[in-house]
Amino acid sequence: MTHIDLGPDEAQFPGITGLLKYRPETAKPLNELAEVLLRSEHSLTRGEREMIAAYVSGLNDCEFCRDSHSAFAAAQLEPGMSLVLQVHTDPALAAISPKLRTLLKIAEAVRESGSKVTTELIDAARAEGATDVEIHDTVLIAAAFCMYNRYVDGLGTLVAQNPEFYAASAQMIVEVGYVG
Amino acid sequence: MTHIDLGPDEAQFPGITGLLKYRPETAKPLNELAEVLLRSEHSLTRGEREMIAAYVSGLNDCEFCRDSHSAFAAAQLEPGMSLVLQVHTDPALAAISPKLRTLLKIAEAVRESGSKVTTELIDAARAEGATDVEIHDTVLIAAAFCMYNRYVDGLGTLVAQNPEFYAASAQMIVEVGYVG
Repeated sequence: MTHIDLGPDEAQFPGITGLLKYRPETAKPLNELAEVLLRSEHSLTRGEREMIAAYVSGLNDCEFCRDSHSAFAAAQLEPGMSLVLQVHTDPALAAISPKLRTLLKIAEAVRESGSKVTTELIDAARAEGATDVEIHDTVLIAAAFCMYNRYVDGLGTLVAQNPEFYAASAQMIVEVGYVG
Repeated sequence: MTHIDLGPDEAQFPGITGLLKYRPETAKPLNELAEVLLRSEHSLTRGEREMIAAYVSGLNDCEFCRDSHSAFAAAQLEPGMSLVLQVHTDPALAAISPKLRTLLKIAEAVRESGSKVTTELIDAARAEGATDVEIHDTVLIAAAFCMYNRYVDGLGTLVAQNPEFYAASAQMIVEVGYVG
């Protein structure tokens, strides 16, 4: 049950979408942060960055964010949802690059606590070619989804009633992005 | 030890300040979010909102954020740091309003996980007069500091070498804010 009154059309705006509509003042920086982290020009692909977001959301048991960003990752990664599901099941066995695997380990540590990110985890990522900006952005993507997940679940928002919602959102994100 | 190279003047820019300087693209929405949540016109005072940020940072063991936002809260609350320290020790016994006490309980739950925010916690805040926007912003402040704390500690940034750094920062925040 949503903990605050999001209006009569609440069911049409599940998860974070109703909250962004409710409070445009906070929506602006929240959307801009997602745009920079997940879509700006980068040495990690959009699909890889969405995969980090989806993975952290899954570990945080945030159903709306996990299903949204899994769809966004699947739409921007080959071969799509089958790969995303492999990562959710076990990144160690998923058909991803060794570098992305080490970055997902860093993201997993960040999710638990910033202090869990060890020099060993950083060295392992560097050994696979990760740059400072890639490490910085992995930490911040993981940290940001610890925020978005708590925001969505802490206010008790609804998940999408129709599973097609996530694929439709993915199409919008791929075409327009988070601030369009 | 900082996990990425923040340049030779790193010690002058401890905690999040070096990261904001390192990556201006992400600094912009991060600063704007802090400005809206902690300083925009609101029925909760700036001091009360900084207190929520400081309290969550303390629970997350993020020394830089705890000491920064404790100084920012102390600079904007009567009677200052003695009250902030009471809250860190035990909000139940601190000389704060009953409403702020219930909001800190919500923030504490958000810190653990969004799913820990119960209808009982929300009803208790409403019974003390909390509005929907106050509940929304409390959840988002707590969630946002779960991000900022993980960002600062996940990249292994330094704390301030000189404890006066925090009081000097507080003066800047009070006068200019986060985006000045």
